[in-house]
Amino acid sequence: MIKVSFPDGAVREYDPGTSSMDIARSISEGLARRILAASVNGQVWDLNRPIYEDSAIKFLAWDDKDGKSTFWHSTAHLMAEAIEARFPGVKFWVGPPIDNGGFYYDIDLGGRSITEEDLRALETDMAALAKKNNPYVRKAISKADAVAYFTEKGDEYKLDLLQNLEDGNITLYSQGNFTDLCRGPHIPSTGLIKAVKLTNIAGAYWKGDEKNKQLTRVYGISFPSQKELDEYLTLLEEAKKRDHRKLGKELGIYTMDDDVGQGLIMWMPNGTIIIEELEKLAKETEGDAGYHRVVTPHIAKENMYLTSGHLPYYADSMYPPMELDGEKYYLKSMNCPHHHKIYAAEPKSYRDLPYRLAEYGTVYRYEQSGELFGLMRVRCLHMNDAHIYCTKSQFESEFRAVNDMYLKYFKIFGIDKYVMRLSLHSPEKLGIKYVNHPELWKETEEMVRQVLIDSNIPFVEVQDEAAFYGPKIDVQIFSVIGREFTLATNQVDFSQGRSFKLEYTTAENETDVPLIIHRAPLGTHERFIGFLLEHYAGKLPVWLSPAQVKVLPISDKFMDYAKVVLGKLKAAGVRASIDDRNEKIGKKIRETELQRIPYMLVIGEKEMNEGKVAVRRQGKGDSGVVLVEDFLTVISREITNRSNED
Amino acid sequence: MIKVSFPDGAVREYDPGTSSMDIARSISEGLARRILAASVNGQVWDLNRPIYEDSAIKFLAWDDKDGKSTFWHSTAHLMAEAIEARFPGVKFWVGPPIDNGGFYYDIDLGGRSITEEDLRALETDMAALAKKNNPYVRKAISKADAVAYFTEKGDEYKLDLLQNLEDGNITLYSQGNFTDLCRGPHIPSTGLIKAVKLTNIAGAYWKGDEKNKQLTRVYGISFPSQKELDEYLTLLEEAKKRDHRKLGKELGIYTMDDDVGQGLIMWMPNGTIIIEELEKLAKETEGDAGYHRVVTPHIAKENMYLTSGHLPYYADSMYPPMELDGEKYYLKSMNCPHHHKIYAAEPKSYRDLPYRLAEYGTVYRYEQSGELFGLMRVRCLHMNDAHIYCTKSQFESEFRAVNDMYLKYFKIFGIDKYVMRLSLHSPEKLGIKYVNHPELWKETEEMVRQVLIDSNIPFVEVQDEAAFYGPKIDVQIFSVIGREFTLATNQVDFSQGRSFKLEYTTAENETDVPLIIHRAPLGTHERFIGFLLEHYAGKLPVWLSPAQVKVLPISDKFMDYAKVVLGKLKAAGVRASIDDRNEKIGKKIRETELQRIPYMLVIGEKEMNEGKVAVRRQGKGDSGVVLVEDFLTVISREITNRSNED
Repeated sequence: MIKVSFPDGAVREYDPGTSSMDIARSISEGLARRILAASVNGQVWDLNRPIYEDSAIKFLAWDDKDGKSTFWHSTAHLMAEAIEARFPGVKFWVGPPIDNGGFYYDIDLGGRSITEEDLRALETDMAALAKKNNPYVRKAISKADAVAYFTEKGDEYKLDLLQNLEDGNITLYSQGNFTDLCRGPHIPSTGLIKAVKLTNIAGAYWKGDEKNKQLTRVYGISFPSQKELDEYLTLLEEAKKRDHRKLGKELGIYTMDDDVGQGLIMWMPNGTIIIEELEKLAKETEGDAGYHRVVTPHIAKENMYLTSGHLPYYADSMYPPMELDGEKYYLKSMNCPHHHKIYAAEPKSYRDLPYRLAEYGTVYRYEQSGELFGLMRVRCLHMNDAHIYCTKSQFESEFRAVNDMYLKYFKIFGIDKYVMRLSLHSPEKLGIKYVNHPELWKETEEMVRQVLIDSNIPFVEVQDEAAFYGPKIDVQIFSVIGREFTLATNQVDFSQGRSFKLEYTTAENETDVPLIIHRAPLGTHERFIGFLLEHYAGKLPVWLSPAQVKVLPISDKFMDYAKVVLGKLKAAGVRASIDDRNEKIGKKIRETELQRIPYMLVIGEKEMNEGKVAVRRQGKGDSGVVLVEDFLTVISREITNRSNED
Repeated sequence: MIKVSFPDGAVREYDPGTSSMDIARSISEGLARRILAASVNGQVWDLNRPIYEDSAIKFLAWDDKDGKSTFWHSTAHLMAEAIEARFPGVKFWVGPPIDNGGFYYDIDLGGRSITEEDLRALETDMAALAKKNNPYVRKAISKADAVAYFTEKGDEYKLDLLQNLEDGNITLYSQGNFTDLCRGPHIPSTGLIKAVKLTNIAGAYWKGDEKNKQLTRVYGISFPSQKELDEYLTLLEEAKKRDHRKLGKELGIYTMDDDVGQGLIMWMPNGTIIIEELEKLAKETEGDAGYHRVVTPHIAKENMYLTSGHLPYYADSMYPPMELDGEKYYLKSMNCPHHHKIYAAEPKSYRDLPYRLAEYGTVYRYEQSGELFGLMRVRCLHMNDAHIYCTKSQFESEFRAVNDMYLKYFKIFGIDKYVMRLSLHSPEKLGIKYVNHPELWKETEEMVRQVLIDSNIPFVEVQDEAAFYGPKIDVQIFSVIGREFTLATNQVDFSQGRSFKLEYTTAENETDVPLIIHRAPLGTHERFIGFLLEHYAGKLPVWLSPAQVKVLPISDKFMDYAKVVLGKLKAAGVRASIDDRNEKIGKKIRETELQRIPYMLVIGEKEMNEGKVAVRRQGKGDSGVVLVEDFLTVISREITNRSNED
């Protein structure tokens, strides 16, 4: 008998050769129908693969990242089967699942081409093949046999792959009429694939090298139900409408230019207003929480980054040095070393701690050009950064205060769904990947865990993903349409204080090293504003809106009164302007709507005579005629409260 | 007869061989007594040197920069005479005047040394020699004779200098018993030197090369009256007390660190508060004046700076490039190119102009390390920058508005003395040093001149010092103790619009290129805060003061009430804290005074019982016991009005 242990700690015994599917059935038929693969001793396996040793197993269903990957990988094989049937003689390179959803296959069509219509036909073919519920069959094969098989087929692509495979580790997978060289794993059978959408056709050089032949890459995505596909397509449509790159251009938020460089955002006037409102919020919040603000340069000499450990470990993601007068200057990729220098500029005592230094610091990181994406992945980042220097006994309350600040921001921005990922160290790697202070690790990790539990913050734990200097928390937030964004990282640091020789005098007149918390609740302007544009579909709350009010006189006759109204709005600090063009009021309203300006004040005879304005809320139409002063009260309250609702 | 023309345009005739002194006497004896040298056809000459050709002449007195230089240079010779008399056998290297006042001489003392007491004795000797009123006598000499003379004297230093001099251009100057190889010019006689102070003794390597012998450098300064020397010494004393480097450290304004790099200021919490107040002022002022704010990255690719003309012309003052993936990235040394790119990001029509882009942009300039000086000369500058894009017809009112903004700021900061320097082009250098648009130059220069005249702004005109793209104005301000600071430059630019292909559509639907005004009324944070520290001797006005109020309870008994007062101050937005140490009130007051905190609120039994505070103004002592609310009214008004007076 073999011993099988489960994630909840339970252990059961089975006959050797039992499969994960057998085990699942022994627990419940429902479970067996739901699962797609299994993790066996940390490796993802086919459900039907026999197990001969004591194992730790975890079932993987659709809600699991590895479950989804397996499902999509199997759909790629199903698509290949349909393509081979429709285009005999085509050859396949690789067909992997994609991290952010779906799969693709690179195909040598032998000079033919695939059209959008072909994709629709292939979807129908795939649905029919799926219905047959053919099993995915794994077959281990010797390298010699595999070479013979693909030589006979005349498949130079698989022969190329085989060159780099080790004998004894080679498997073929078949379903229906299709067989491929593949390391798996796969779902049990095609019947689980209930809905498929082939999304795109693109060219892709073989092995990504433009000197090679161009293959055809077909993209797709699949789901265990038609309902999920429909939801996905709706989300896709919605996300397209809310694309921050499209909105960023339409609303004059940001621009880029080849002469400046890829990934280097220039914030236009409207984007800068959003930046300033966010910074005002951060400064108020951090001011109330006892942070001091500092301003530091964007460069430092090599030695600083040798001390901090950024060099050589992070050199790849830094711009190369500027060499001058025998010195190497680097653009900073993090603000912490500069803040440490400010901490060290004046002697500190326990009375000065916690000492909190905040800066909307601009850092530079050299992302690969293929990775750059709108505001989401850039090379210049404005970071809502701060470092808290504290004693061990202050740590817990400081960390709790940081978390409370996150929750406060989530409320302001209407972020209802979020999750924190607690990244822990790995005890075997102490002194190798992690600083060698086992008690400090244990203690700090437990403190962080307890804060998360006490604050009722949803979180998951991950082993072996801490920073080298301490545990960290990755904060993930979800936009109203459910897309996930990595907002920021909170880190606990018991290492850099030592490296930078930071000290304070204790109450007992001894010298100690402060703990450091690295935190950035609003992440970077770049990513956060990208998120906000999607989250609000460009219709920012009034306080964040670059233009808050547009005054729309029905004709020139009411221009003087419009100016009086404008004057009152500006005196109240409202960002407003007049549409003074000689256009029909309908056109003025339509264009203002498109600019996502939250309030329109229409002005005609009646309004002028009564000292009133006809208020329209963007996207909601008329909301009545009110006295100018009453409107000012409403909008001022909305701005001051940073209201999320309208 | 030769024709002599004067600055006012008058022309008179004189015999050939007439000297400037003769000419001055022919005008007035008073003038002749007052002048120190003359500019003859643009070169500074001895007053006694005969003139043989038609010449443009200008008399140089003490109020003229070249007059002062000549005076100090002659005093250096007088000092050398006194030193040679007291230390026979010493040898002299060079003895020039110094740009920011005074002179020095580098001396080989032959192993002896000079003490502070020697300086006092030398001052007495020099006064006696000056009284003799010996004339400074110029003698042209052939190179061979000069070499023979200094060979006989055994003066290897002058022989070294002679190597690089051309025969026919060599002169000796003598006064009393002292003769030196010198190109002059000098004042007529030693009697003009009424007051001398020898200020410092330092070591200086021969020719500035540390492999050479070390010479002794003696510094001094001199004046045409004892009164002026006394005033100078008082100013020096006062400037020392107000030294921004000393105050910057004492008040926790800024710090620097070798690991970051020389000239790279890190702004500490107190300095950052000043920065934020200045930026708030600038943002309000620019917002009211219709500027849009933008945020741009600190780097750009090589091509940008080839287009702008910064490369290769300004390459020396830029950090070297970062080379990566076949691209060269530069740290920006100016913000204009980035702003031009934002202008160009969306099409513009005449209705969009004037278009004003403002940014507190951080730029990097690689000053030589020997030039770096506190906050005054640094390598990272936060600039109160903006660029105004306008039509030619809008230019005059825009430029006037910029000047008005300067005057507004001068008033806020109590700057009573300032002067503007209008730098014009040189018509002969059109197409070489200046863009070749003669009419545009003429027109723009006249427009700028007229704005200055109309605004009653004191200004001087300088030929041949414009920017290559248009005339500019250098703004000089004076601190309350009379020291001069270069604040900023205003430039008119009719070139970069073309280089960057900036356009707008005119009312006639044609395409035109905007004029650009570059302006920075508050200069850079670095220099301006350095100026403010000196100007206010560290006692900043309340609105700028990092800490505005210190609450000083007389004992622990009044701590609760102190906290109530603190709460009210904070709620009113006042930067305040409590001195909660268990110290005598006298000590608390003394220490708060030293921190230059403008208000102290002393709290004891009486104040607590009556809901009052005993107010002390920094440097002024008691100013009465008032209700907390009344104090809040006073200080809030002072902050809101940005009052300069207390």
